[in-house]
Amino acid sequence: MQGPTRVPRTRISTLLADPAVNTDLRVAGWVRTRRSGKKVSFVELNDGSTLDNLQLVIDHGMISDEVLKQVTTGAALIADGLLVKSQGKEQAVELQVRTLELTGPADAESYPLQKKAHTLEFFRDQAHLRPRTNTFAAVLRIRHGLAFAVHEFFHRRGFFHLHAPILTGSDAEGSGEMFQVTTLKQSAVPMTSAGEVDYAQDFFKRKTHLTVSGQLEAELVALGLGEVYTFGPTFRAENSNTTRHLAEFWMIEPEMAFYDIADNMALAEEFLKHLVRVALDNHANDLAFLEKTYDQGLTAKLRAVLETPFVRLDYTEAVDILQASGKPFEFAVQWGIDLQSEHERYLVEEHFQKPVI
Amino acid sequence: MQGPTRVPRTRISTLLADPAVNTDLRVAGWVRTRRSGKKVSFVELNDGSTLDNLQLVIDHGMISDEVLKQVTTGAALIADGLLVKSQGKEQAVELQVRTLELTGPADAESYPLQKKAHTLEFFRDQAHLRPRTNTFAAVLRIRHGLAFAVHEFFHRRGFFHLHAPILTGSDAEGSGEMFQVTTLKQSAVPMTSAGEVDYAQDFFKRKTHLTVSGQLEAELVALGLGEVYTFGPTFRAENSNTTRHLAEFWMIEPEMAFYDIADNMALAEEFLKHLVRVALDNHANDLAFLEKTYDQGLTAKLRAVLETPFVRLDYTEAVDILQASGKPFEFAVQWGIDLQSEHERYLVEEHFQKPVI
Repeated sequence: MQGPTRVPRTRISTLLADPAVNTDLRVAGWVRTRRSGKKVSFVELNDGSTLDNLQLVIDHGMISDEVLKQVTTGAALIADGLLVKSQGKEQAVELQVRTLELTGPADAESYPLQKKAHTLEFFRDQAHLRPRTNTFAAVLRIRHGLAFAVHEFFHRRGFFHLHAPILTGSDAEGSGEMFQVTTLKQSAVPMTSAGEVDYAQDFFKRKTHLTVSGQLEAELVALGLGEVYTFGPTFRAENSNTTRHLAEFWMIEPEMAFYDIADNMALAEEFLKHLVRVALDNHANDLAFLEKTYDQGLTAKLRAVLETPFVRLDYTEAVDILQASGKPFEFAVQWGIDLQSEHERYLVEEHFQKPVI
Repeated sequence: MQGPTRVPRTRISTLLADPAVNTDLRVAGWVRTRRSGKKVSFVELNDGSTLDNLQLVIDHGMISDEVLKQVTTGAALIADGLLVKSQGKEQAVELQVRTLELTGPADAESYPLQKKAHTLEFFRDQAHLRPRTNTFAAVLRIRHGLAFAVHEFFHRRGFFHLHAPILTGSDAEGSGEMFQVTTLKQSAVPMTSAGEVDYAQDFFKRKTHLTVSGQLEAELVALGLGEVYTFGPTFRAENSNTTRHLAEFWMIEPEMAFYDIADNMALAEEFLKHLVRVALDNHANDLAFLEKTYDQGLTAKLRAVLETPFVRLDYTEAVDILQASGKPFEFAVQWGIDLQSEHERYLVEEHFQKPVI
């Protein structure tokens, strides 16, 4: 294999955070758009390290026609050049391209992403191109940042990360909602003479499921290591197509020995605030994009969570507040009921207007 | 709930790393052993934060008989007292106990762990007590430290962590070895009129498996975000009971755009050395315990990996070396074969005596 990247590439995020103007450098990424004049083309290049693009200025005289004509939306390229202050108002710096290597052309006729915005629905059929879009890339970058913040938070506090088993014979929360895992041939499941499935012939010689929670294992390990957390995939076979139900999701479960309920609440509040702080501090431009595109007021809402002490409210007091509210709840409130979503929303959004534990 | 831990406890790892002698503090953990004299008992307390125990010195006159008689191996307790220099030679410091709270007694007759060493086999039936043992606790602490080091390594280099899907309809490496995931009733799997399993009635309306690799998804995301890695559970339904085959294991898969093979090799070497360095620097006493108990030469072997540049060897040269070795390999060597374990071992352990890529 050739070594076109022996000169290390500079990430666009690094380059824009502290632009070393009048420096030679290499960037690599994917063409978002190209505007062509007679002698010069302007290319918006994105490398996924940040929402922001770098403008490449390509002098047509310096690049072969063969390469030039392939510089189209979606094409992957490596560019060497000089970073300079930009003449334009849209960006602070731009790269005056000296050499250009096309590492992956994208056919201008058939490449599915064009300058117009695409719907999220569109990307259900073009899932492989999601990481090339601002929305999915922003979500993936933020998710990475928060996942790392989870590990950092617990590690610094002396917690140990436990990889709880995914395959399990136990049933943490009621078996109706579990996925079964098997190597039995589905067209000929073996039966015992008593007319039951013969799990002795299955892989683990017993009925096996995907975990719904690593809590049981985490509790046992906490009773030897002190403070532990799980952070791994969890599965629910609930057939509920809502935004609050997923068949597969990553869950965080801290388990601590020698904690009381006040310790637990303090940990939960610190933990959530740490994650919100990381999102605001490290992902400001991705959040600004999501706010503009999907959710007005997003950053203000996050900042409020960060700056507000969470309310500690005991159950009896919560019931009193709800009963005194005069609100026509769908589920009538009396001492002893489980609080429903509508009750929690009233307490948080209307009564206290801040997070409540 | 009472708040016995409103005074924060000090971890034994923290306390031993930099002992604040003549300080009042609180510790909490589990009794490993107790030696009783007439007036004083000595308790070895472990809290899981480190392999090392803290010695508690209990003056029988200060603690009620009711509590004292429950201070037996396995009991959980919270102790307040004064940290002092130890008179004994076994430890630098000890805690002169002022108050003692038993939070979880362990029946002296029936608690399964006693002072003698137990076999690993024994803990197959007492799996819940594994975290109370030096061996499993050491392994869990090191595993945590290395897992965190994986995230830290990639995060610092601008990689994004991708949570690749576990449930999948795709087949990354050949379908013979996959676990099937289903909600079909195994005693009455529905069939179509054509005599095939009617997957339209299964949860995802198609045949579904546990992933054998997140590589495909990681490749797609790398082609938008640049550099990504997966670190999650992976499954193989291979019925091979060897130390090299597991049904469930956590796998790390980095995928990078714009890297060539030299870049890949450099990354792999840096990555492994980072993990070895973290193990040696942060887990010295756990490694020393494992070396003493299971694997003479362990730390020397790790140190050699850290200090040796890895050999880069191309396939043709490897075949030449193997053929010239005169070794009677089980699988004869000729250009074109896949190298087997025995060939790799010869190159690494005998010919080069260092890691080889």
